[in-house]
Amino acid sequence: MQARIDKGGVSNGTVTVFVQHTSCSLTMMENAAPAARRDMERFFEKLVPENADYEHDDEGADDMPSHIRMVLTRTSETVPIVDGKMQLGTWQGIFLFEHRRASHRRKVSVTIIGE
Amino acid sequence: MQARIDKGGVSNGTVTVFVQHTSCSLTMMENAAPAARRDMERFFEKLVPENADYEHDDEGADDMPSHIRMVLTRTSETVPIVDGKMQLGTWQGIFLFEHRRASHRRKVSVTIIGE
Amino acid sequence: MQARIDKGGVSNGTVTVFVQHTSCSLTMMENAAPAARRDMERFFEKLVPENADYEHDDEGADDMPSHIRMVLTRTSETVPIVDGKMQLGTWQGIFLFEHRRASHRRKVSVTIIGE
Repeated sequence: MQARIDKGGVSNGTVTVFVQHTSCSLTMMENAAPAARRDMERFFEKLVPENADYEHDDEGADDMPSHIRMVLTRTSETVPIVDGKMQLGTWQGIFLFEHRRASHRRKVSVTIIGE
Repeated sequence: MQARIDKGGVSNGTVTVFVQHTSCSLTMMENAAPAARRDMERFFEKLVPENADYEHDDEGADDMPSHIRMVLTRTSETVPIVDGKMQLGTWQGIFLFEHRRASHRRKVSVTIIGE
Repeated sequence: MQARIDKGGVSNGTVTVFVQHTSCSLTMMENAAPAARRDMERFFEKLVPENADYEHDDEGADDMPSHIRMVLTRTSETVPIVDGKMQLGTWQGIFLFEHRRASHRRKVSVTIIGE
């Protein structure tokens, strides 16, 4: 994304990253420890279990849990740009959090605004 | 909202939808299946129950749960605009998620930014 | 923040508040009742307990819970500006929600966009 910002010529503004789906999330996360991401996945598997007698299960047992996990997390992140640099903190990374079992193509959109 | 974008003349930018309350949410959701919204409501009723001995209950048993459900979900959504079109995915809709039992008037604000 | 908006000369747009950390949140909250904030803290202590056998515990028992509580809440809030005024509702306030036990310096960034 920093490359897009460099190219776009915006010095001060924001970059918004947005995912066009309701069964995955785009969320800030600790970027250094893969163990933290595994703990996160386990937490959500337990908090929003698959076998919870959902009314909506058109696409299988992981259908409704994926929507609930999405609503509990985030669909977009907006990050400031100052002097042409995205102002992520040292440990911040933006991650796609996949909530379905099967692999899916996911479409992420990046919008840079400012001057 | 697309009508507002058409009128506003912004080709590339973002639209931010924001709800001015702390006892309801404005959140992305699966837009086709009403059953998914019913499952969502049932999930939050169970995760954040009314009878949980809250210290803050000035407005009744649904007062504090409404604030917690709001914090667990979202107050605003920001969606990209590309070539004058709001870039929602096929299954994405933005919904007002009411957390109080009685009906309330809710104020939603729409801001379009870009050029 | 209203002072920054007054000074910046933006009449219509948005203000984005962003926290550069993964172990605290920046979230909308009921601004009048301190009891509501105490209930909120108790809810998250119970929902995301410290003693849950996390794989990631480099910085102690409150390390992983802090990341999960962050992902369940928010890293930024974007609020509309209309006629130079931040459009927060009567009961809305933006709060830093600290998830670590020890005190930390926290860096918050404010970005105003519009014209």
